[in-house]
Amino acid sequence: MQAPTACLIVIGNEILSGRTEDKNIAWIARELNETGIRLAEVRVIPDIEQAIADTVNACRKAFAYVFTTGGIGPTHDDITAASIARAFGRKLERNKEAEALLGRHYGDQINDARMKMADMPENAMLIPNPVSIAPGFIIENVYVMAGVPMVMRAMFAHIRHGLKGGAKMLSRTISAYITEGQIAEKLSVIQNRHSHVEIGSYPFVRQQKLGTSLVARCTDKMMLDAAYAEIKSLILTLTPEVMEEDLAA
Amino acid sequence: MQAPTACLIVIGNEILSGRTEDKNIAWIARELNETGIRLAEVRVIPDIEQAIADTVNACRKAFAYVFTTGGIGPTHDDITAASIARAFGRKLERNKEAEALLGRHYGDQINDARMKMADMPENAMLIPNPVSIAPGFIIENVYVMAGVPMVMRAMFAHIRHGLKGGAKMLSRTISAYITEGQIAEKLSVIQNRHSHVEIGSYPFVRQQKLGTSLVARCTDKMMLDAAYAEIKSLILTLTPEVMEEDLAA
Repeated sequence: MQAPTACLIVIGNEILSGRTEDKNIAWIARELNETGIRLAEVRVIPDIEQAIADTVNACRKAFAYVFTTGGIGPTHDDITAASIARAFGRKLERNKEAEALLGRHYGDQINDARMKMADMPENAMLIPNPVSIAPGFIIENVYVMAGVPMVMRAMFAHIRHGLKGGAKMLSRTISAYITEGQIAEKLSVIQNRHSHVEIGSYPFVRQQKLGTSLVARCTDKMMLDAAYAEIKSLILTLTPEVMEEDLAA
Repeated sequence: MQAPTACLIVIGNEILSGRTEDKNIAWIARELNETGIRLAEVRVIPDIEQAIADTVNACRKAFAYVFTTGGIGPTHDDITAASIARAFGRKLERNKEAEALLGRHYGDQINDARMKMADMPENAMLIPNPVSIAPGFIIENVYVMAGVPMVMRAMFAHIRHGLKGGAKMLSRTISAYITEGQIAEKLSVIQNRHSHVEIGSYPFVRQQKLGTSLVARCTDKMMLDAAYAEIKSLILTLTPEVMEEDLAA
């Protein structure tokens, strides 16, 4: 089975202003990979209701799964739930289950702003939040999670078992102090011979030296190992010293 | 003048697989901010010609500026130039100026793969690359840059003076160990009273304590300071201890 696709929508002015460095994209990408789901696109969008609704509607049709992070807290700039209700043409209503959870958690510290976190599109399914209680939610193929990494990760742990992935993508990486221009032509021949393996080439600079990491990816271990052996041989014709190999996954 | 909008398109399977953490988004966001341009969206997309062409075409109509990073090296997976030629319906041709630059730089180390970096859509304007020579390029409102942060930053330094921004966005940040739920209602009143100031609230966890950063943004210094004074007063009613203030920009 081909890996289903996913899109991650990062909702937050703080990422677009450069104030905050995103910590969620790489983490979610790796988790999805493990689950056999291919992250095919990421969009970072502002806290604007129309932008959120339009983006969610475009992406939920184009990808098997849509994940969102951010904008589900108690303050005035947390508008994800309302925007997603609008995207689906559903009423925004107080979710009884979420209301009970928040009431129990906050006790006499509950207030209108905190209770706003129980407002969700009708018929949403809750995603538990063991860290700070206020839950995320699922509607059809859209999974709505918190933006704070610690909370998002706890939510993802809950939904992960329910995601249906295909074969897991395996990978092999080799890095050495060679330049892309030295290997590009022969690498292209290897890529053509192994069309089921995706070969990526990524230059880097470390200790003022230019190097390249070559990454081979495939769901089939035998095909992957065959292509990787050729890549490694090519590297060894140019330098006796391989900087590092990652054969982990 | 209202700030023109920009979209950043990050081209690269390595970001979507989680192998590489993006280092460019926050840096470009802050630089654009300084220039009075508002980064309104980021898209991370795979090394697939159709995806690149479609995304570039959607974004160049929707935003004043489009910046791309990644995919302009010598290997088989570097397909940004060809994809952008397709997006604009222009021929991909060997750029004479880039050809001369690469020829001089590589001397007798030049080969077909390295020379491929001179292939660009017709009538592209070069972006100089003092780090590794192979240039980026500009077509209309689309700025095509390298993905390696060191190279991208050098390219951006060259194009920056040519970007036309509006008034620079100023910001004030205050952080304290209070929770969003404690301030949300009064903060909302402040936001309504200062509708030209954008107030964002961002929870964080540090040293196992929950805190909140409040960020006020506006192009007008007087409006910004007025709103910020009220935000700071609100914080001080709840805690005598402000963790940090950032009034820099």
